[in-house]
Amino acid sequence: MPEYQDIIEAYHRINDYINKTPVITSRTLNKKTEADIFLKCENFQRVGAFKMRGAVNALSQMSEEQKNKGVITHSSGNHAQAIALSAKLLNIHATIVMPRTSPKVKIRATRDTYDAEVVLCEPTLEARQTTTQNLIDKHGYTLIHPYDNENVIAGAGTAAYELLNQVKELEMIFAPIGGGGLMSGTSIATKGFDPGIQVIGVEPENVNDAYRSLQSGKIQKNETINSIADGLLTNLSERTFSILQKNVDQIITISEQQILDATRFIWERMKLVVEPSGACSLGGVMSKEIPIKGKRIGVIISGGNVDLSHLFEKYENLIN
Amino acid sequence: MPEYQDIIEAYHRINDYINKTPVITSRTLNKKTEADIFLKCENFQRVGAFKMRGAVNALSQMSEEQKNKGVITHSSGNHAQAIALSAKLLNIHATIVMPRTSPKVKIRATRDTYDAEVVLCEPTLEARQTTTQNLIDKHGYTLIHPYDNENVIAGAGTAAYELLNQVKELEMIFAPIGGGGLMSGTSIATKGFDPGIQVIGVEPENVNDAYRSLQSGKIQKNETINSIADGLLTNLSERTFSILQKNVDQIITISEQQILDATRFIWERMKLVVEPSGACSLGGVMSKEIPIKGKRIGVIISGGNVDLSHLFEKYENLIN
Repeated sequence: MPEYQDIIEAYHRINDYINKTPVITSRTLNKKTEADIFLKCENFQRVGAFKMRGAVNALSQMSEEQKNKGVITHSSGNHAQAIALSAKLLNIHATIVMPRTSPKVKIRATRDTYDAEVVLCEPTLEARQTTTQNLIDKHGYTLIHPYDNENVIAGAGTAAYELLNQVKELEMIFAPIGGGGLMSGTSIATKGFDPGIQVIGVEPENVNDAYRSLQSGKIQKNETINSIADGLLTNLSERTFSILQKNVDQIITISEQQILDATRFIWERMKLVVEPSGACSLGGVMSKEIPIKGKRIGVIISGGNVDLSHLFEKYENLIN
Repeated sequence: MPEYQDIIEAYHRINDYINKTPVITSRTLNKKTEADIFLKCENFQRVGAFKMRGAVNALSQMSEEQKNKGVITHSSGNHAQAIALSAKLLNIHATIVMPRTSPKVKIRATRDTYDAEVVLCEPTLEARQTTTQNLIDKHGYTLIHPYDNENVIAGAGTAAYELLNQVKELEMIFAPIGGGGLMSGTSIATKGFDPGIQVIGVEPENVNDAYRSLQSGKIQKNETINSIADGLLTNLSERTFSILQKNVDQIITISEQQILDATRFIWERMKLVVEPSGACSLGGVMSKEIPIKGKRIGVIISGGNVDLSHLFEKYENLIN
């Protein structure tokens, strides 16, 4: 399990490769919640999500031999982009296994912007895993798991660490939970910084495996993946489960409507492009399930990658 | 014509009522333009646009008698919202004349969020002016023009003044031109701060009255209002024309596609919600019509009010 010290070391290790992201506040939000809310805007991070922190931290700690052989991951999401860009910056060969049904724009971005090798496979979990394993067997690539990895977790924790050093006297920190990597890192950073700060996880009601896992004391799986928070559909691993058990004060779950309302609030009122997964943490704050009145609250906005082609097609039609 | 000193005084006068907006940078943008670009994000201003600065500055300088009688404006755009909120903060009665075809959400926001009196009229310029004049005659309201007003111009200039104090050694400042209020204030602030800084105005090709006015030496009118930059459709006034003639180094015009490309870049890559009018200044930078290589460039992003209901309806359909 990563320690607080690992997060501090990770922060200095990755510092030249990541953005120090701004903290944004809103009078309207503070008035609405009757609290002082500080949004840690990882949507402004490179590749548009906190995932860059864990990816750089993991890749830069590989052995020379591993670096020479290259890295691999299977994902079509933010983690894949983060691995691809980190590998490019560190001169490591990266292979990204993606379902052949992935949006072309995503495949192109991964290939062209980040120079990664994209290998397409059938759109099933089994095909992804088999394809990945075959490539590992053949080339000796190192697999970087999106969250079940100590260095990825330590890297993810640097967002909260940075926030705690940007904004003094926070009393609570909210973060979203998917596989638990961000939540694990956030909780280690926060409790290491000051054990008195409350750490709150927020999960969609529809994919509440972490909530049920902590309630029952053993890992529970999601039965559906039916949420607009498409970055939070994964299950905890043993590693992230045990970190959350130790460090997280409370997990709350919110409805799809609450996720959407928080997302819309951030777009319309705060003028930030965030993904629904990234807005979940604020959805938890706005749900008022936890008394927050008068408190200073840090909120990790985890990312801002959404498909805007629909919106811009409307504009294209207007001008053509 | 407002002087540099008027802008400094305006800045101190309005300081408690406005947001000090952040300056956002992007590695990708700097790489793409081969320059150091600093976006002054007035989309984060109260009511979502720089208009708040001019409105507060104008209203707070009214006489006690004028304040007691109230203010009026006819607009369905950012200026109306800015007048309504400023009036609320300063305890002044505000009347906003809006076409009865305005989006309901806008009418509601003006009425409910800002407590302004909304008077609906037929959707013609003549009806707006007649309705407004009748109300002035009856109640003695003071009309606050959206840009043909010295105090509004001085207030608008505080955005550039703030930027020049946030980012040192800027060599150029780009701002969009509609009626010329923002451009006037920006140019006075910039030339007052340091006459060596180049001031560049950006206008949509389709509504290039300012460009033609400066070329010909006399005010030209727009023949169409056919641009997605719907905040830039207005014509210069004598006042803003003479300020631009004196202070602006160059006006460049960009196509609708260039406006859209800049807007999309800011949304997708920088994760900021901006309106097409607000992105025009960056569109001018990205057009490379002016040599910018290696330069430090300030760019005023004027606002971020766009109708997102279409986008969120898609999400609503997903979850219901």
